[in-house]
Amino acid sequence: MTERIATFRAGGRDRYGLVTEGGLVDLTPEFGARFPTLREVIEAGALDAMVQAGAGRAPSWAEQDVTFLPPIPRPDRIICVGVNFPDRNAEYKDGSAQPEHMSLFPRFPSSFTGHGQPLIRPPENDTLDYEGEIAVVIGKGGRRIAAEDAYDHIAALTLCNEGTIRDWVRHAKFNVTQGKNWDRSGALGPWLVPFRDAAQLDDASIETRVNGELRQKDALRNMMFPIRKEIAYISTFTTLAPGDIIVTGTPSGAGARFDPPRYLVPGDVIEVEAPGIGILRNTVADEC
Amino acid sequence: MTERIATFRAGGRDRYGLVTEGGLVDLTPEFGARFPTLREVIEAGALDAMVQAGAGRAPSWAEQDVTFLPPIPRPDRIICVGVNFPDRNAEYKDGSAQPEHMSLFPRFPSSFTGHGQPLIRPPENDTLDYEGEIAVVIGKGGRRIAAEDAYDHIAALTLCNEGTIRDWVRHAKFNVTQGKNWDRSGALGPWLVPFRDAAQLDDASIETRVNGELRQKDALRNMMFPIRKEIAYISTFTTLAPGDIIVTGTPSGAGARFDPPRYLVPGDVIEVEAPGIGILRNTVADEC
Repeated sequence: MTERIATFRAGGRDRYGLVTEGGLVDLTPEFGARFPTLREVIEAGALDAMVQAGAGRAPSWAEQDVTFLPPIPRPDRIICVGVNFPDRNAEYKDGSAQPEHMSLFPRFPSSFTGHGQPLIRPPENDTLDYEGEIAVVIGKGGRRIAAEDAYDHIAALTLCNEGTIRDWVRHAKFNVTQGKNWDRSGALGPWLVPFRDAAQLDDASIETRVNGELRQKDALRNMMFPIRKEIAYISTFTTLAPGDIIVTGTPSGAGARFDPPRYLVPGDVIEVEAPGIGILRNTVADEC
Repeated sequence: MTERIATFRAGGRDRYGLVTEGGLVDLTPEFGARFPTLREVIEAGALDAMVQAGAGRAPSWAEQDVTFLPPIPRPDRIICVGVNFPDRNAEYKDGSAQPEHMSLFPRFPSSFTGHGQPLIRPPENDTLDYEGEIAVVIGKGGRRIAAEDAYDHIAALTLCNEGTIRDWVRHAKFNVTQGKNWDRSGALGPWLVPFRDAAQLDDASIETRVNGELRQKDALRNMMFPIRKEIAYISTFTTLAPGDIIVTGTPSGAGARFDPPRYLVPGDVIEVEAPGIGILRNTVADEC
């Protein structure tokens, strides 16, 4: 079975551990003093050892008694790759050719909530939109990582609903910052799956459903900028660190692309699914 | 005399303290256990108390024996405001009207070095450029801060050389991320000056010199988006936290605007100066 490592809140504090069929195996008592969060676990190269330590143990928490949190609470970098599937570039209908380089934008950790929590629609604007994506978590940091070595720098995979306030993406002359960083407008999770085999990415596909209706679906092999190239390009200018997250790109089919647009409303259920990783499920709520 | 609070490296460890004419008054021995960095000092509202504790003490370190570091080592957010002086919009020569909203982009802490250190020109590209700016450090965090209350949320001021690899700013369809985040391509410092009086910003001016030659100079009152509006707008979508840094915008006159462009080369000395704050001085070196 796939190993799944989650960060969660239970009993009044943040914890991490294994997600099993019967509930969550809390590994904080054993590892928490040495590694405050999964980021430090990954930095120490201790993910495998931790998984082994927890294997076969009885769950400490029932899933309904915990609140899932983004797997890495405070990465140094969350970098999202924009417009990375060919149909997505066409969706912009600006007559532009495929760009030579990938578009990149950072998101702050505060812009994400965890699995099972509502994405927050703010009172200022009702164009909250979904974008389902696979995210990679850096294990071994580095600068100028060669594309052929890139997979050696990935510790784990997770999912992202790269939730966006669409109207604010085009507020300004350049940059999408203010459409992409609303507090808890997106989600990361539900958990980390250790990355051990290139096929986990090379054969991966991603799909997004809203209230059960398929909206986005594509295979990662169709990306204009494959994940190996993302890591190579990003690490050209910035030294990647353990726990950094790269959100790798979303297929066509976001709500903004419908005519009229189909933005998210309170009560909607959005599921981002990738076989072998899991399902990131979130509702939508108006900010109160 | 202006109070100046710096983060610096001396005697093999990172420290903070007061910058005086005779050298640096190290306050780490007294405050370091409670407040690992100036961020925690600011979060606790202890900046004034710390300054008072250090007043009149004999310096512990001579200035030539310390290495200045960015004043806040790891803020949650460094948000830069782009194209914020009227002439700057005209410089883009794209016929566009003044934008309705400000352009914003995050920078990672790794993209900055401290006062006195070289900005790093990478082997990939030689279009390293300067942008002198005043930066504000958030003291009291908040969401949806009203413009008229914005100054109450500023703890301190500092300077930024928002160094840019100009060719990479336009690599992609959207976003300037990859031109703005090269490791140690910019600088923050030299220190923090406590913010106590609106006039420190309302009457402020900023200038940038390269090898003594004036390149940029303007008054903050000419900004299209004043700092009060920056804080109000940014905090609409993200909850600002103590220690967050807003880099407020650069006047016209960056090297890219000359014909032919005048990019930085090793040995150049760039000084970003604002009366009442100080001079942020950096050299340029090729990455080795």
